[in-house]
Amino acid sequence: MVTYRAHVEYDGTRYNGFQIQADKPTIQGELERSLAQLTQQSVRVTGAGRTDSGVHAHGQVISFKAAWSHAVSELQRAMNATLPDDIAVRDVAVAPEGFHARFSASSREYVYRILNSAQRSPLRERYAWRVETPLAMERMAEASGLLVGRHDLAAFGQPPVGTNTTRNVLRAVWASAADVLADLPEAEAQPMLAFRIEANAFLRGMVRRIVGTLLQVGQQHLSVAEWQDILLSRDISRAAAPAPAQGLCLWRVRYEHGGAPEE
Amino acid sequence: MVTYRAHVEYDGTRYNGFQIQADKPTIQGELERSLAQLTQQSVRVTGAGRTDSGVHAHGQVISFKAAWSHAVSELQRAMNATLPDDIAVRDVAVAPEGFHARFSASSREYVYRILNSAQRSPLRERYAWRVETPLAMERMAEASGLLVGRHDLAAFGQPPVGTNTTRNVLRAVWASAADVLADLPEAEAQPMLAFRIEANAFLRGMVRRIVGTLLQVGQQHLSVAEWQDILLSRDISRAAAPAPAQGLCLWRVRYEHGGAPEE
Repeated sequence: MVTYRAHVEYDGTRYNGFQIQADKPTIQGELERSLAQLTQQSVRVTGAGRTDSGVHAHGQVISFKAAWSHAVSELQRAMNATLPDDIAVRDVAVAPEGFHARFSASSREYVYRILNSAQRSPLRERYAWRVETPLAMERMAEASGLLVGRHDLAAFGQPPVGTNTTRNVLRAVWASAADVLADLPEAEAQPMLAFRIEANAFLRGMVRRIVGTLLQVGQQHLSVAEWQDILLSRDISRAAAPAPAQGLCLWRVRYEHGGAPEE
Repeated sequence: MVTYRAHVEYDGTRYNGFQIQADKPTIQGELERSLAQLTQQSVRVTGAGRTDSGVHAHGQVISFKAAWSHAVSELQRAMNATLPDDIAVRDVAVAPEGFHARFSASSREYVYRILNSAQRSPLRERYAWRVETPLAMERMAEASGLLVGRHDLAAFGQPPVGTNTTRNVLRAVWASAADVLADLPEAEAQPMLAFRIEANAFLRGMVRRIVGTLLQVGQQHLSVAEWQDILLSRDISRAAAPAPAQGLCLWRVRYEHGGAPEE
């Protein structure tokens, strides 16, 4: 049995999240079904991030142990041939001994996209949250900057059982994002914003609660000082409702030492 | 009864095209259902372009006659509230007397997107056709240029009953397109191409057969001279298979004289 590592991209719209559930479509379920079909064995897949129902991924990383006697490129080709259209394996490689997609990861990065427009746009809203009201970007940028560093972030999410709520946020920035409909000269480009956040690890619902609460700052319902109060409060009842799932995408996972277990 | 004109954007994935059909979801069917619900009358909707099953639209134009006693902005709001998430009314206006979305249109413009990559990408492929092989863009640009002008284009599609196959192509160009996943500095941008074609009117399946055949030129299976032969042949059996629906988007419809019927 060899340990493999793969990058997986998916459109999460029709899935009940990454983690396998009985009788509901999940990303893990589809990946394990594909590997069972190809290897004729039961294969357990681990993901670096347990994305929620409806959340997308560009750079999810998975690990699994499997008996595969052909080339690794052939494993990628065979997985892509058996997976549904909305899940793709971007690459597969043999991983170092002991590699574990979740425990070996040093950081995760998520992107949350907002279409800031009063006008509905079905061709953009599959992968973005449409917010009608104008947003004060400088305030949101200032508030986001306060996230960086080591904090107890219990205000924004629940930890896995038996772990704490302290996380190390490495980056939290807003930027303009590519508008998929802006590729023609006369297109009325609409403001598409991307919030990019990287941390060693995330609490459940953390990015979406942070975005929901930052929007309150951008819409002038909260001052930056009030935002900081909430951020440090460890009181989840003070955070805004989570922003909707379709705007969120697991963008990338980083591994130090190439993912070899640290000694 | 007042004549209205509206711009409609839709994700065509789950619809059997624009034109209404019994027992199958269609764009026209959803629009008429919304208007019947709002006006309590049967309303017939006409579209400028009868997009095929799975084809998207950013700038579809519709016209309809309806009795609506409130503000026109209220009609837009009410339609958007009753339409499914994947269909949106971008604006509604009172149209000149005699305006007809299809007959009054002076030209239509379609965009066809290609993701030129060996790697599957679910987050891009909903609105693009992925082509694995490298494409000789200069050849495709040269071949596309030969489309411009007045030609009998029977090689690329069938006309509506009782009309001819001569169409006036005003523009046919290839360009790089925005990659929705390229909004972050480190993203591996993938070549996303957009073919943009404008003509007074289109034959059924015309853009997709043109793109399918142009790809043969880009992949060096056809010379530019052979392409020109096919273009002028009026023989649909010589065109390549139509490119798949998901890459196609009705981008814009133009009206001269503001859409008033010509005298």
